[in-house]
Amino acid sequence: MTRGRFVTLEGGEGVGKSTQIRALAAAIEVRGIEVVATREPGGSTGAEAIRTLLMEGSDDRWDARSEALLFAAARADHVARTIRPALARGAWVLCDRFVDSSRAYQGGGGGLTDADILTLHGVGSEGLLPNRTFLLTVSPAEAARRLAARGGSDRMGSKPADYQARLAARFIEMARAEPDRWQIVDADAPAEQVTAAILEGLAEWL
Amino acid sequence: MTRGRFVTLEGGEGVGKSTQIRALAAAIEVRGIEVVATREPGGSTGAEAIRTLLMEGSDDRWDARSEALLFAAARADHVARTIRPALARGAWVLCDRFVDSSRAYQGGGGGLTDADILTLHGVGSEGLLPNRTFLLTVSPAEAARRLAARGGSDRMGSKPADYQARLAARFIEMARAEPDRWQIVDADAPAEQVTAAILEGLAEWL
Repeated sequence: MTRGRFVTLEGGEGVGKSTQIRALAAAIEVRGIEVVATREPGGSTGAEAIRTLLMEGSDDRWDARSEALLFAAARADHVARTIRPALARGAWVLCDRFVDSSRAYQGGGGGLTDADILTLHGVGSEGLLPNRTFLLTVSPAEAARRLAARGGSDRMGSKPADYQARLAARFIEMARAEPDRWQIVDADAPAEQVTAAILEGLAEWL
Repeated sequence: MTRGRFVTLEGGEGVGKSTQIRALAAAIEVRGIEVVATREPGGSTGAEAIRTLLMEGSDDRWDARSEALLFAAARADHVARTIRPALARGAWVLCDRFVDSSRAYQGGGGGLTDADILTLHGVGSEGLLPNRTFLLTVSPAEAARRLAARGGSDRMGSKPADYQARLAARFIEMARAEPDRWQIVDADAPAEQVTAAILEGLAEWL
């Protein structure tokens, strides 16, 4: 049996993560490997219910601490009900955002630290980390163009440009701190080239 | 201005916590003190929405880790939006269950420890603890009689008798480990006597 691998895509809104997940799933499935393509927040029945709480309502519906705990709760359900069972049967799991999004979005404000987010992940999901994480980066101009093309943003993405810049910087910092797990991919390139770059980063397991 | 105090009632289902909260609120309000009577899970708009997720559905809707995170998320919202603002303006907060219920119900099973629950409480609510906690204890026969009288139990309470016994033992253990904060009250006694015993335990602040 092929050993399951856990692969995540990270980055701001509009960098093409969901498009890449679909392309990667197709490219890996043709090799005869079962692929579970999923996303956060969500990816299991309970986590989707929590996602609704997180995505609806005004920007100040949750303070930073409650929001971080809700993301961790959704992730714990997703890990227990979807990700771990898939990996256990040898499937590959491709996930659009995971704990690193919480670290980037929630771990740098509202009195919460990166260590706090990792502590919640330890209790909730026993600290499960991906085998490989791809950070898709785009230039601010390209991100704005893609967001506009899809008709705006949801609650999580509707933040000013300087917030998006700090977010991008935090992702880069995390990627550089853990180079064995992360690879940075220039997603200003055409989608096919981005897919090829990611597949190259997975070649050792394919 | 009277300094706000944070008082919680703990114990299994059917021990009379909500009856006592009402009686205590009345007895403290006649002294000219603002009282906020609240309960967990819930007690604020966001926490009530999370309460719905926790209380509905089958017993196995959530695994232990997701459930503990959801309780901590509800508590963080309750603390940030209801409890801390009330204490800050000098009100007394009387709360039907708080973090000790999570320690008793979630901290002894499903791979989670008491330390895990306190860790979540530290991140979510900056570790806020009550000034005083009253553990209401009843004999198993009396608890069964009261539960039957109110027509059964909700998802949290619908557990077998040996579970209820372990729960009662965990509450006693916590109370004995922190005697300055906890007082144990025999709630087999008539409600008026229980109220009087609790008020005696608050006399130093009244």
